[in-house]
Amino acid sequence: MAGGEFDLIRRHFAPLAKSLGAFGLADDAALLKPRGDLIVTADAIVAGVHFMPDDPPESIARKLLRVNLSDLAAKGATPLGYLMTAAFPKDADDGWIRRFARGLKADQTEFGLSLLGGDTVATPGPATFSVTMLGAAGPRGMIRRAGARPGDLVFVTGTIGDGGLGLAAARGDLTDPPAAAKRLAARYRTPEPRVAFGPALGGVATAALDVSDGLIQDAGHLARASGVALDLSVHAIPLSRAAVAVAGDGLEARLAAMSAGDDYEILFTAPPKSLARLEKAALETRTVVTCIGAARAGRGVAVVDPEGRPLPVSRRGYDHFAFTPP
Amino acid sequence: MAGGEFDLIRRHFAPLAKSLGAFGLADDAALLKPRGDLIVTADAIVAGVHFMPDDPPESIARKLLRVNLSDLAAKGATPLGYLMTAAFPKDADDGWIRRFARGLKADQTEFGLSLLGGDTVATPGPATFSVTMLGAAGPRGMIRRAGARPGDLVFVTGTIGDGGLGLAAARGDLTDPPAAAKRLAARYRTPEPRVAFGPALGGVATAALDVSDGLIQDAGHLARASGVALDLSVHAIPLSRAAVAVAGDGLEARLAAMSAGDDYEILFTAPPKSLARLEKAALETRTVVTCIGAARAGRGVAVVDPEGRPLPVSRRGYDHFAFTPP
Repeated sequence: MAGGEFDLIRRHFAPLAKSLGAFGLADDAALLKPRGDLIVTADAIVAGVHFMPDDPPESIARKLLRVNLSDLAAKGATPLGYLMTAAFPKDADDGWIRRFARGLKADQTEFGLSLLGGDTVATPGPATFSVTMLGAAGPRGMIRRAGARPGDLVFVTGTIGDGGLGLAAARGDLTDPPAAAKRLAARYRTPEPRVAFGPALGGVATAALDVSDGLIQDAGHLARASGVALDLSVHAIPLSRAAVAVAGDGLEARLAAMSAGDDYEILFTAPPKSLARLEKAALETRTVVTCIGAARAGRGVAVVDPEGRPLPVSRRGYDHFAFTPP
Repeated sequence: MAGGEFDLIRRHFAPLAKSLGAFGLADDAALLKPRGDLIVTADAIVAGVHFMPDDPPESIARKLLRVNLSDLAAKGATPLGYLMTAAFPKDADDGWIRRFARGLKADQTEFGLSLLGGDTVATPGPATFSVTMLGAAGPRGMIRRAGARPGDLVFVTGTIGDGGLGLAAARGDLTDPPAAAKRLAARYRTPEPRVAFGPALGGVATAALDVSDGLIQDAGHLARASGVALDLSVHAIPLSRAAVAVAGDGLEARLAAMSAGDDYEILFTAPPKSLARLEKAALETRTVVTCIGAARAGRGVAVVDPEGRPLPVSRRGYDHFAFTPP
């Protein structure tokens, strides 16, 4: 690779350190002056596991930020900045890194972020990136996984299942119809974190998390943390037009959507009395929100048909830890 | 590997999340209630590049925390907690991960830290770890690299060059005398970050950084950021007894020590009028501090002999980005 670590940082990453306290990455640490509580989260992605080595570098960078932004949004936080460590393989060329940095820059602009610091190292293995994202907590603090109560309604933003179909499309396993496949692949590569809507959930949602490992599995995390059971109505699951064009909207397609990963939507619970405030938040942030079920006393997640009868579920979600050869 | 991501986190890493705001790693993010300014830094390490795959897992974990603690200490910050992302290879067995977590726990106890969050993923490549460390800034804020003024004295904590010799000893390239080689290898594997002394430098040091890539090279960073020249006296460089036993204290050994990596000592500047406060800080934190030179108007770093004559320097430091096959 051309140049050493310092050169690489100076050329590609220092221009992304917009925050005053980042000192243009010319110091060993960043200084943060928080005005209140902070919410922090970290995610790592590995070439061949979380993204394909021949994915466009810009979209890898954007997805890296967006999976973290999605976590913050679901906790009601407003993003401030991030630290990134990057392990580049020997054959990562300068053009690739430039495009990667361009992707970071695009999303920094879109979401009002600054790179605050990090580290750049070489690896004999696949490209590996880690981001720690810091956000300002809302005035009501962090929206937890725990907090759902029997009688709460269950909601989800956007549409479910596009990420899973998009992965198949990005791999070339799903091509028809072409426009829908292209749209799904784009959604897999560049999810839309609910950065504006998340903070509007403060004081409205009783519990929330982002759907990244499959709706049923993630709903299970929320149910367990809250000590309630969740009934999810299979026919209420919002599907995108592209997903319906590709896979239809039959029961099988719906169950597949509910166990697919990479949605990066917010799953949350709220009591019925919050419906008016919720509608206002959705309208103001132009976010589609769908009621997909309800919480009751008990445990676990049931997927129910329109008559409320539980359906057999063979697959609940996706474990990103599972090893997928490139 | 036995179990998936959730199981791995629950068994090995959740017990390390001692801080209230970490929610036992059972949520998607951590909540931080800072009492003042924060200082944040991040570092990544890769098997075969920054540590040897057959190093004891405990010491890999401790070094991972300590390189970050060293950065915070040099900035005058007191550590609070950290987020960690871990990419484990397929063949990482449960016993290895348990020992790794035990190393984290030992240093959490020693330095008063909590794991705050993170991510665990699989990699087809070498084990790769990334830590973002958060610390509380001292009342005087962050000690910068910039700030040294002509007339300031240059100081360093502890001894210099042990890390470089320790790497050779850890690799088995340096074995004689055995006790010294063993001691140096231990110092390479488990550096001693100056966690108590660093915060005592607030209002005393005009500039500081930690020596991780070679004293001459790191002094160059400080000189450049401060807009001064630094004269480092080769005969003043503090060498450990083990280093002298192994390599002697001749000019060549001293120059080698000044360009070796992995020292994790603090290099700092302070005006002569601060000497009394500095001595008090060193005594109170039981830290050995040595004056090794002075700052003057100009640029660059000169290594000078006892008569003040500059010596030729062929090697300034170590670029951790350089690819070293395992």
